[in-house]
Amino acid sequence: MYDIIIIGSGPAGLSAAINAKIRNKSFKIFGNKNLSNKLDKAPKVNNYLGFYGISGKEIRSKFEEHINEMEIQITEERVNNVYAMGNYFAVMVNEKVYEAKTVILATGVEYGKYLEGEKEYLGKGVGYCATCDAPLYKGKTVTIIAYNEEAEEEANFVCELAKKVYYVPMYKGNFDLNSSIDIIKDEPIKISGELKVKKLILKASEIETDGIFIIRDSLSPSELMPGLKIEGNHIAVNRQMETNISGCFAAGDCIGKPYQYIKAAGEGNIAALSAVKYLNLIE
Amino acid sequence: MYDIIIIGSGPAGLSAAINAKIRNKSFKIFGNKNLSNKLDKAPKVNNYLGFYGISGKEIRSKFEEHINEMEIQITEERVNNVYAMGNYFAVMVNEKVYEAKTVILATGVEYGKYLEGEKEYLGKGVGYCATCDAPLYKGKTVTIIAYNEEAEEEANFVCELAKKVYYVPMYKGNFDLNSSIDIIKDEPIKISGELKVKKLILKASEIETDGIFIIRDSLSPSELMPGLKIEGNHIAVNRQMETNISGCFAAGDCIGKPYQYIKAAGEGNIAALSAVKYLNLIE
Ligand SMILES: Cc1cc2nc3c(=O)[nH]c(=O)nc-3n(C[C@H](O)[C@H](O)[C@H](O)COP(=O)(O)OP(=O)(O)OC[C@H]3O[C@@H](n4cnc5c(N)ncnc54)[C@H](O)[C@@H]3O)c2cc1C
Ligand SMILES: Cc1cc2nc3c(=O)[nH]c(=O)nc-3n(C[C@H](O)[C@H](O)[C@H](O)COP(=O)(O)OP(=O)(O)OC[C@H]3O[C@@H](n4cnc5c(N)ncnc54)[C@H](O)[C@@H]3O)c2cc1C
Repeated sequence: MYDIIIIGSGPAGLSAAINAKIRNKSFKIFGNKNLSNKLDKAPKVNNYLGFYGISGKEIRSKFEEHINEMEIQITEERVNNVYAMGNYFAVMVNEKVYEAKTVILATGVEYGKYLEGEKEYLGKGVGYCATCDAPLYKGKTVTIIAYNEEAEEEANFVCELAKKVYYVPMYKGNFDLNSSIDIIKDEPIKISGELKVKKLILKASEIETDGIFIIRDSLSPSELMPGLKIEGNHIAVNRQMETNISGCFAAGDCIGKPYQYIKAAGEGNIAALSAVKYLNLIE
Repeated sequence: MYDIIIIGSGPAGLSAAINAKIRNKSFKIFGNKNLSNKLDKAPKVNNYLGFYGISGKEIRSKFEEHINEMEIQITEERVNNVYAMGNYFAVMVNEKVYEAKTVILATGVEYGKYLEGEKEYLGKGVGYCATCDAPLYKGKTVTIIAYNEEAEEEANFVCELAKKVYYVPMYKGNFDLNSSIDIIKDEPIKISGELKVKKLILKASEIETDGIFIIRDSLSPSELMPGLKIEGNHIAVNRQMETNISGCFAAGDCIGKPYQYIKAAGEGNIAALSAVKYLNLIE
């Protein structure tokens, strides 16, 4: 049972982690090796106080140095769900469960729009966690729309059970995929079906499929954690970064605009200190 | 008539200034040559994401470089009052008046009257945040002069690391303290030492101590700006950093705890972007 589990390794999650460490709490932080794709992409950052004219990649290596110096390791696993269990939280990573007294959500936001038909068929063939739902597609056809390379592992896992797997990469890379998987380089336009998904319609082609998994950098917060209060597309919090669920805090892009590094880092700091305060109260 | 006047040159004000500049607004920032005394005095800062194990002075020079690169100059004048004039603000500096369409208050918090020796030994054994600096006092003796019961939590935290903790309450209450902490009911008179703190001299006694933390209430900013809504000792704002007066925003320590650099910088960023949004609306 951890004191704090932090979900997300962007500026918000990292800032929360360094403060959890300084305050002597046991914690785990889930995220990516590259910390955040959004650090990779920023060409020039001028508004993170202390660094002028730095690139996103350079700022990432500053963050990396910081957590390395403090011996903070990121657990490179994808959290599928978080359940509030009353006096603790169950954090689900595929077949594994981690437990913590408090949770900090720092998952960022997805800038991309939903696909046409995506919301309509959610739970009716459309899903966000291929490894979770793979057993439903034994002997069937599954299509994975992948926004990052972490989806490759999911595709390889699913293809052990499914009859056929199509992989639609929305990023550039060397796709490390089982040879039985068909890679489709085309742009998804629409999901169609009747009671359930039947087809993925792309710009230049169509795929007949029983299931479609869309693997983006972050899940919508209501998918991630049932019962969480949402305002617009963001997690509702107060200025102490408390959500409506006691012991659950949130920070960064996932709680609202402006979408900015130092805002995210500042909020991660507040969220961690609020979690510490909460832990001291319940102990 | 400026677009934005920023009052305060700590991390909150500086962060607001760089964002005002990036957004092409005309602005003025009031403060000190040394930016913030609180940057000067921090012995070791580990929780500003991107910099590890840096001193307050070093972090200040990073901030200085940043604003110099962006050609931002601080006006070294003390603002006495700010008046909301309906559709603009009058910012009073002794006999001078500056005018702006929006104002960002980033004044930090005042710690009240100083003890004799307090300023002299600030950063040399005297501090204001026991939980921040506790690691420096591992195995040492720490004295906490407490003006409010929030200090009890700090004392309990420090006593996990320190060899001995003395608690000097300047308020009445049931002290919810770890039994190993000695409560000293006496009046602090003077802090003495050589290069560093050695003693706290009280009316009827003396304490040999390596560190002294003074935990005070902050002063009300209502003196600076009449009509400003205050909550406790802080300026009331929402998550967009809007105060109750339209066109007036606030950020940093002056809007509430936790008192932390990166929180202040993150809020300065939000305040500036909110001011920009407001300016774009009224124009
Ligand atoms: C091209 C570009 C340029 C930008 N330029 C600037 C700029 O100049 N200045 C500025 O201030 N801001 C800029 N931004 C915005 C900035 O990138 C974001 O505001 C910031 O990254 C938000 O930080 P965050 O920690 O909230 O989320 P993110 O940085 O998005 O990080 C979230 C992390 O959590 C991980 N995660 C999400 N869900 C899970 C899960 N379920 N399990 C495990 N891990 C999970 C994600 O994979 C990701 O690594 C830019 C953004 C882009 C895209
Ligand atoms: C010894 C010490 C150690 C600390 N260590 C840490 C740490 O390790 N980590 C951490 O995160 N935080 C630490 N802090 C807290 C941190 O210093 C503050 O949270 C931070 O400085 C707040 O920034 P701010 O911009 O809100 O205000 P401040 O830094 O207080 O800056 C406000 C500025 O505004 C100026 N000002 C105020 N009123 C006026 C006026 N009317 N006219 C003109 N100028 C005005 C002030 O003179 C000052 O320069 C420490 C503080 C101290 C004292």
